[in-house]
Amino acid sequence: MEYVLGIDGGGTSCRAALATADGAVIGRAKSGAANIRTDLTGARTNIVDAARLAFIDAGRDPDLVPQAGAVLGLAGANVGTYRQQLEAILPFAGSRVETDAEIALEGAVGSGDGAMAILGTGTAYMARHNGKARPIGGWGFQVGDQGSGARVGRDLLEQTLLAHDGIRPASPLTDEMMAVFRNNPEAVVEFTTNAKPGDFGGFAPKVFEHAAKGDIVAAWIVDKAVSDVEAALNVLDLREGDPLCLLGGLAPLYAPLLSARYSALLKPPKDDALGGAVSMAARYFGSKGNG
Amino acid sequence: MEYVLGIDGGGTSCRAALATADGAVIGRAKSGAANIRTDLTGARTNIVDAARLAFIDAGRDPDLVPQAGAVLGLAGANVGTYRQQLEAILPFAGSRVETDAEIALEGAVGSGDGAMAILGTGTAYMARHNGKARPIGGWGFQVGDQGSGARVGRDLLEQTLLAHDGIRPASPLTDEMMAVFRNNPEAVVEFTTNAKPGDFGGFAPKVFEHAAKGDIVAAWIVDKAVSDVEAALNVLDLREGDPLCLLGGLAPLYAPLLSARYSALLKPPKDDALGGAVSMAARYFGSKGNG
Repeated sequence: MEYVLGIDGGGTSCRAALATADGAVIGRAKSGAANIRTDLTGARTNIVDAARLAFIDAGRDPDLVPQAGAVLGLAGANVGTYRQQLEAILPFAGSRVETDAEIALEGAVGSGDGAMAILGTGTAYMARHNGKARPIGGWGFQVGDQGSGARVGRDLLEQTLLAHDGIRPASPLTDEMMAVFRNNPEAVVEFTTNAKPGDFGGFAPKVFEHAAKGDIVAAWIVDKAVSDVEAALNVLDLREGDPLCLLGGLAPLYAPLLSARYSALLKPPKDDALGGAVSMAARYFGSKGNG
Repeated sequence: MEYVLGIDGGGTSCRAALATADGAVIGRAKSGAANIRTDLTGARTNIVDAARLAFIDAGRDPDLVPQAGAVLGLAGANVGTYRQQLEAILPFAGSRVETDAEIALEGAVGSGDGAMAILGTGTAYMARHNGKARPIGGWGFQVGDQGSGARVGRDLLEQTLLAHDGIRPASPLTDEMMAVFRNNPEAVVEFTTNAKPGDFGGFAPKVFEHAAKGDIVAAWIVDKAVSDVEAALNVLDLREGDPLCLLGGLAPLYAPLLSARYSALLKPPKDDALGGAVSMAARYFGSKGNG
């Protein structure tokens, strides 16, 4: 095929990159949400729109869309039969639907062995050995996402209330938090009643910052979070020389705190998730292929 | 006053007990919700209805309601100005609005020194020394309620997913939980997305049961929960001879697990919360009074 497409679709937007058969990007575009779990046909519409706009951005005829091969990375593609349902209604000459994690891993470490840890409001991991990718975590902050911004922030509020009751030690950070909530524990509770993961996660950078200054409560929370992240890394079975990429907003905060075993493996990501989708598309449908 | 009333009002119903001046109950009744935070005038209506029905149940004229003194124990009475707002619109000859915890403590240990631990879907504590009551905890399961059914159940789901990922050990109980969710971790996540505290708490008795049989994951969760409950008891500053009452659905499960220091203080509750409100009313407004 002369053209290949990489698509990175999520709950707020859908990005597309058009490339020549060797994976050289010549056009980019963005459209609306592509949530295949909640709106399959709406997702298809936005995916096709983004693809057509990428052709236009490259100065090419958008009616060539049905001649391109596409790799799509979409959240929720690993659940139920959404992947098969979408593949059946896509207009491309060839399509492969992958999870958002798979294109992110390809972008970060390329097509060989390696692993990534997404450390943001949530946490999730993926490792690839001999072409086989294994996902870990990503189960949401309520009963998962250990070490995530949401969990670190929630831990801080919990420790703040325990300090208020005299059950656990107070610290400059818990005092600061009580002041944020006008020294009213009921205000903390009211905040948590409707707080979304990102609301809890908003407090996470402050926890890392105070931990670095020796705040005992912050240090306890961060130590636990680092140990939770390393417990997840332990099951990825990384070998010497495997690249390990940290992605997500907390990546720069975790990088200096990892033990020598993992800090020795850290590499900056080669490309982003959309770049990963493009290079998979070039491999499957273009001139880079062996597939 | 010839008559005193005890009122126990909550989010689902309002109970009233009519007693003679010495606190001997002669009539009981129940009406709808008395939630002063969400519906103050509706709460007043149901409180007055329950009081009138208690007079009728005792074979007395309900128009005598304005001649009775009442103690009301109401959830949320410690927040904002709800207590004062309600007292201003009640029809009784005298009224005192207390929290639900205060009438429960009075019912459990009487009017002297002592403490209670409410160990149910949530957890909360209250101790009284020399007439002064101190509440601890009760901040909700999201960032509080350590040791509660909701926290124990949430811990079980978290450990089940960690076992699924190979990060923490599996056990007969985590295997059983995965089977409940058709071995699909996504189904666990979906359950937690909309789960209320009581939904998590539904799993708690199973955790205690498996812990007693030596299940390693269940034992780890219960050990942590017992240590969280004892950490809260530690700040209540109990002295030898102080009665300690465990209330709530998990009370019989915790009682045999407490350390000797606290099991030596355990006493069965003298009465329930409504009985506590009646005896407070007899003390404040009846012939038992010194107030």
